[in-house]
Amino acid sequence: MIFAVTGVWTIWLVLVAAIAAFVAAFLLKKKVDTADAGNEEMVKVQGYIRDGAGAFIKRQYTTLAVFVLGLAIALGILYGVSGSLDFHWSLMVLSYLLGSFASGWAGWLGMKVGVDANAKTAQAATKGLTPAFDVSFFGGAVMGLICSASALGGVFILYFFAEDPLIILGFSFGASTIALFAKAGGGIFTKTADVAADLVGKIEYSLPEDDPRNPAAVADNVGDNVGDIAGMGADLFDSYVASLIAAMLLAYSVFRNMEIVDAQVFTTYPIIISAAGLFASIIGIIIISKMQKESPGKALNSGTWIATGLFIVIALMFTLLTFTTPGITDEMKNRLWLNWGSASIGVVAGLVIGLTTDYYTDDSKHPTQAVAESSQQGHALNILTGFSYGLLSVAPPTLGIVVAMAISFTLDGVWGVASASVGMLAIVGTIVSNDAYGPIVDNARGIAEQGGLEEDVIALCDKLDSAGNTAKAITKGFSIGAAALTVLALLYSFMVEAEEATVDIVMELNLLDVDVMIGALLGVMVPCVYSAVLIFAVDKNAQVMVKEIRTQFEEHPGILEGTEAADFERCIDIATKGSLKALIVPSLLSVGAPIVVGIIFGIRSLGAFLAGTILIGFIFGLLLSNAGGTWDNAKKYIEDGNLGGKGTLAHAAAVTGDTVGDPFKDTAGPAINTLICVMSLTASIFLPLFVAVGGGAGLIQL
Amino acid sequence: MIFAVTGVWTIWLVLVAAIAAFVAAFLLKKKVDTADAGNEEMVKVQGYIRDGAGAFIKRQYTTLAVFVLGLAIALGILYGVSGSLDFHWSLMVLSYLLGSFASGWAGWLGMKVGVDANAKTAQAATKGLTPAFDVSFFGGAVMGLICSASALGGVFILYFFAEDPLIILGFSFGASTIALFAKAGGGIFTKTADVAADLVGKIEYSLPEDDPRNPAAVADNVGDNVGDIAGMGADLFDSYVASLIAAMLLAYSVFRNMEIVDAQVFTTYPIIISAAGLFASIIGIIIISKMQKESPGKALNSGTWIATGLFIVIALMFTLLTFTTPGITDEMKNRLWLNWGSASIGVVAGLVIGLTTDYYTDDSKHPTQAVAESSQQGHALNILTGFSYGLLSVAPPTLGIVVAMAISFTLDGVWGVASASVGMLAIVGTIVSNDAYGPIVDNARGIAEQGGLEEDVIALCDKLDSAGNTAKAITKGFSIGAAALTVLALLYSFMVEAEEATVDIVMELNLLDVDVMIGALLGVMVPCVYSAVLIFAVDKNAQVMVKEIRTQFEEHPGILEGTEAADFERCIDIATKGSLKALIVPSLLSVGAPIVVGIIFGIRSLGAFLAGTILIGFIFGLLLSNAGGTWDNAKKYIEDGNLGGKGTLAHAAAVTGDTVGDPFKDTAGPAINTLICVMSLTASIFLPLFVAVGGGAGLIQL
Repeated sequence: MIFAVTGVWTIWLVLVAAIAAFVAAFLLKKKVDTADAGNEEMVKVQGYIRDGAGAFIKRQYTTLAVFVLGLAIALGILYGVSGSLDFHWSLMVLSYLLGSFASGWAGWLGMKVGVDANAKTAQAATKGLTPAFDVSFFGGAVMGLICSASALGGVFILYFFAEDPLIILGFSFGASTIALFAKAGGGIFTKTADVAADLVGKIEYSLPEDDPRNPAAVADNVGDNVGDIAGMGADLFDSYVASLIAAMLLAYSVFRNMEIVDAQVFTTYPIIISAAGLFASIIGIIIISKMQKESPGKALNSGTWIATGLFIVIALMFTLLTFTTPGITDEMKNRLWLNWGSASIGVVAGLVIGLTTDYYTDDSKHPTQAVAESSQQGHALNILTGFSYGLLSVAPPTLGIVVAMAISFTLDGVWGVASASVGMLAIVGTIVSNDAYGPIVDNARGIAEQGGLEEDVIALCDKLDSAGNTAKAITKGFSIGAAALTVLALLYSFMVEAEEATVDIVMELNLLDVDVMIGALLGVMVPCVYSAVLIFAVDKNAQVMVKEIRTQFEEHPGILEGTEAADFERCIDIATKGSLKALIVPSLLSVGAPIVVGIIFGIRSLGAFLAGTILIGFIFGLLLSNAGGTWDNAKKYIEDGNLGGKGTLAHAAAVTGDTVGDPFKDTAGPAINTLICVMSLTASIFLPLFVAVGGGAGLIQL
Repeated sequence: MIFAVTGVWTIWLVLVAAIAAFVAAFLLKKKVDTADAGNEEMVKVQGYIRDGAGAFIKRQYTTLAVFVLGLAIALGILYGVSGSLDFHWSLMVLSYLLGSFASGWAGWLGMKVGVDANAKTAQAATKGLTPAFDVSFFGGAVMGLICSASALGGVFILYFFAEDPLIILGFSFGASTIALFAKAGGGIFTKTADVAADLVGKIEYSLPEDDPRNPAAVADNVGDNVGDIAGMGADLFDSYVASLIAAMLLAYSVFRNMEIVDAQVFTTYPIIISAAGLFASIIGIIIISKMQKESPGKALNSGTWIATGLFIVIALMFTLLTFTTPGITDEMKNRLWLNWGSASIGVVAGLVIGLTTDYYTDDSKHPTQAVAESSQQGHALNILTGFSYGLLSVAPPTLGIVVAMAISFTLDGVWGVASASVGMLAIVGTIVSNDAYGPIVDNARGIAEQGGLEEDVIALCDKLDSAGNTAKAITKGFSIGAAALTVLALLYSFMVEAEEATVDIVMELNLLDVDVMIGALLGVMVPCVYSAVLIFAVDKNAQVMVKEIRTQFEEHPGILEGTEAADFERCIDIATKGSLKALIVPSLLSVGAPIVVGIIFGIRSLGAFLAGTILIGFIFGLLLSNAGGTWDNAKKYIEDGNLGGKGTLAHAAAVTGDTVGDPFKDTAGPAINTLICVMSLTASIFLPLFVAVGGGAGLIQL
């Protein structure tokens, strides 16, 4: 079959897109590399952050290597014994390893550039807003481009040689394994440091944010990089590839028995429109870099709008080009049209979900201000009001997903839904860029403070930082929506594959069947336990770090007076060790739970289990992220001088809300995205195992 | 068909049980009536509570009457026009009115006795533990018995005359309408007063609990009665009848075409075993009243254990008696056996779920102590730890429900599951008794404080109060588990009825169908919005009351000095008006949402919608109730002198947790039970409407 795929010549556009993105990333990286790194103190602080982040990543990747190798061996045995593949089993293992490597590499490189850009942003801020914005925006864009390019490039190469979308499953599962560690581990790290720094530094000793006397200050900065750059990148890399594999498998299954070129037109189409999305992101980044930067928030959001519009247009062009494939029929063209429509609906729905998320977390809007006002009545009402708005905020995105599903399904059934998720994630380059911009400017502010730069430079960094928060609200809504649609598509493709692989079982998920309802009940339980474990981890590690900080202050009173340097490394070490240790249970849960359900109750229960995790995961993801975002911005709103500003009961209560919201929005909430994705992929890749147990009916047949 | 039912002579046991319970309730009420009402001050305070509760109920019932009449007219038109009933449509309307009336009457009478018992308990406490326990226990038992007896009596009479279980649907929907108002409205009332009393009284002015100088103190006591007695009673009345209607409809549908006596054996069986449960509760109450009362907590829990054991035995006897029905075959006997087994599994599962709930909220166990310890690190960690334990606490009940479902389904399919829910709720007399005991002793403590009784009497009341909390943990787990199983059974019966009423639609809820997934997604959204609205209502009303309290303290400084009486009525008035006004959105949501989904997307989407609400409602119900319980008890643990006791940061943080937990556990959490029940019944009773729209396929067909 090798190279039959070349009948669909537009597949080469994917390679062109990936190469273009790598080139663009390289050029942007050079711009960051050549920027001025600032004064000695800044270089020193930046060095601490770089070393801390490097040490964490090294330790994490070492642990991860063992986990990846273990799973690689398991997959080798599973596919070697079951013989269920049309290609050699070792290719699946290779694909898995490649997926882990590609995601790990992209995360590492992106983070490295991000860490490098932070001090340089602070330094550029001494020259004005535009240079500072450019350095930080370029730093983030490198991450965005490298992530998309290596994902798309990997998918292209694997598919090009194997011509069977199943091979991408290994790649996707590999990326998921990394995301699991990077997102959950990074999330625990970043919030351990953040919570501890706030609890002791801000509340007990009234030190300002990022004060160099706070021993947790550097760990806090490191956390931004490992959690919000590397972790978030791995998370979106994961969703991105998962959306592709789901769409490719669904396309493939529908056309499994067609002539080879016919099938290839459909199975390659998801990657072709993703290439359109990557081009859209590259062009968007170029346009932003040429724009006036009076309002950095507007510039970032324009980038998202531009990429969305460009994606729809470029995908249209690529679709028309694909029509030139030899042997394509009108009926096939019609289906491509429908899926282009679905993809366009998907990306628009992503934008709408992002905008409503913004409404609930923006401090110029009613919800956040209401949370700030309720803080005047104390801690409890701050929590209650923020939590309630978090609950309310799930409604608009749910309606958005429902509308997107209804339209895309009407256009082309489950494949249409999968195309909507591909569309939503096609501009992932832009989403990751904007997301990675956040921690860079956040760190830049810290370095400016620690490096003793002028007040107006710090104020400028603050402005950049607040733009990051605005952009983040939209991109966060985007990623939760995209993850939900993607795992739905994965669920469909899992059931289609299962239907193909089994004989006796009708692959329906009828909730009136008891095995299905039991699966769904078990499914809704898992994200709760998973979130609890992650929040506990932050909670526990933060308490250890709090003790360390207090000890340092007590034993070395010079630290508080500024005459003695705080020992940053001890705090980084606590966060690193704690977060890796805390990953054991979540990792086992994510990979183990679907395997156990599939073996005991069979494939249908497992399908319902996944559906249950999706339903509640979507809700909890939104609730935790948006409540957290609202609390965070309510605090900032008060710190900006509203309602009496700092030093009031309202401020103290708002800080409580922010501290509660930290692990909600940056640890548990986003990790649920990864969880549902990992579990869905685990189910798909371990399918031969479930088929081996009672033909897919499981050990206990109800 | 009239009276053919008498072929199954054991049906008369139901009437006997209902009469026995009424007689027992009457005797216990007399004992409460003749107890000593205490000193003048106590009578005065009790009078305030009685008048406040009476005023609230009067206002609530007036509003409710309009709502009930509106729905009665709607039902009359619906059933009159559709002509879908085998009996006259006016009987359905009558049944609906009877259900509302029975539930409303039981709630009112039970609350009246409860309010009456509180001062008398305080007075009896001057004579010792046993007399005090007896008065309060009898007061609660009146409520428990009247609730069960009027529910079972109503079902008996309606079924006896119509001999069609569909008639009970009206009764059940009537009870649900009351529960919706009583539970959500009472929940908002009670927590408005509680939160406001705590925020100003305890935190700002450091007044002790129940201090007569606090203008919200009486409203707080009134709230306990309207929320925790009348509201909770209506809620369980609702679940109880719903479990019966679901089981009867499922039995009826399976045997619809059998000879009349055959079908009657099965359709009457659920009420017959419920009668066994009511006898078990009566005997349990008698045993407890004769027991030694060294440990009131143990006495209450023994009551639950005894009722559980007795239920299994008496149900066995009643099953054997039913075997003497003329014409019964061995195959029919076998099915009754299986359903007796399912009912026994159900009640045991209820107990297990209750015990695990107890683990997460008992202050002698790890979770609550861990929450107390984390409070030493401040408000935020108290919230995070309590919330995480709340998340974890969903796991054991979910596993309990899964096991109960798996076994009961294996025994006799969906009817087996329905029987498990009937079994779980059969001892509702005991559950309601123990629950109603709580507010009585809580009020007794308040009255003892306000009536100036001795310190050791107050301490004794405290002991009684803490027993109430222990019992409540178990009964709360019981009711959430029972509600989940009941609504599952309702879902099954809804789909079976829909299958019967429609022609073209396969009544499956296959999550791979887009209309089903869309229904489920909309379903998971509703409990979030509902909870948010209720918490907001508490939040907003509490803020109004806080202002009122502050105004009273400022304008009448004599109140704080004890020389001037606080104006209790203003606070009661705020809570009353606020809670009724806040009910508009939740009521429309509960009844309106299923109707809208059913009309727009059709019956299958509606079924999935209900499944979605059940899945997330179960999780949120447990999370909110258990997190709230843990916070509450962590605060009490600290107030008992642990970790430094009152006046510490740990205590302040624990009070924050308690205040957050109040609307979680007493407003939103339990109201979700009612919500999912009301929505399921709405779907069932409006079925003819959905059938009328495109034959059940809805306006938008995907």
